[in-house]
Amino acid sequence: MSTSAINFEQKFAQFSEQWSPKIIAQMNDVAFKLVRIQGEFVWHNHAETDEVFIVLEGTLSIEFRDAKVDLHAGELLVVPRGIEHRPVAEQECKVLLVEPAGTINTGDAGGALTAANDMWI
Amino acid sequence: MSTSAINFEQKFAQFSEQWSPKIIAQMNDVAFKLVRIQGEFVWHNHAETDEVFIVLEGTLSIEFRDAKVDLHAGELLVVPRGIEHRPVAEQECKVLLVEPAGTINTGDAGGALTAANDMWI
Repeated sequence: MSTSAINFEQKFAQFSEQWSPKIIAQMNDVAFKLVRIQGEFVWHNHAETDEVFIVLEGTLSIEFRDAKVDLHAGELLVVPRGIEHRPVAEQECKVLLVEPAGTINTGDAGGALTAANDMWI
Repeated sequence: MSTSAINFEQKFAQFSEQWSPKIIAQMNDVAFKLVRIQGEFVWHNHAETDEVFIVLEGTLSIEFRDAKVDLHAGELLVVPRGIEHRPVAEQECKVLLVEPAGTINTGDAGGALTAANDMWI
């Protein structure tokens, strides 16, 4: 039985880079990723998949072209597939992403902030 | 833009029943469900899917036939498909379940604790 509890804080203690999602668990083809976010990301969308943000600590804003959603600890947002969005955080926040394994963080945009998408911790 | 933040505490305030998962969000074919757990559930397994438990408040134990995993707030467990398990909690705990939409809470076991699996709040 390899099943064991995964502690978010213990996992966050293992890395300090921002915008670099780390996989901590997988359910079927869905990856659970922890990420530290601060500053402004690039505008992008994921044509093939919805994406879930769950804020564990701090405040995260998801900007859309016509709206902005502020997420605090204990809040979840579903970004529907194909919808342009941009994560923004004034101070560092800690986020749990839930999305299909293999999803690229910058979606269609690419660029310097594109992270490896198979980094397990 | 119907996208808006989903607050776990506000959602929990809308129901008090235990062992009755409520869907709060869906990403592709994956449902995010809040559930209040106290006491002993039935032994069961889900032949077709893994299942994720994330504890938001309190302590949840997942018993396996040959092991037991205690989960506290801020901890996650993946129960692999086909593995018999039984959730147990001495005091009420609040849990976020992540599993494919349509997954039945009692899996192969059925019985009185089987809940409706399409209850959105």
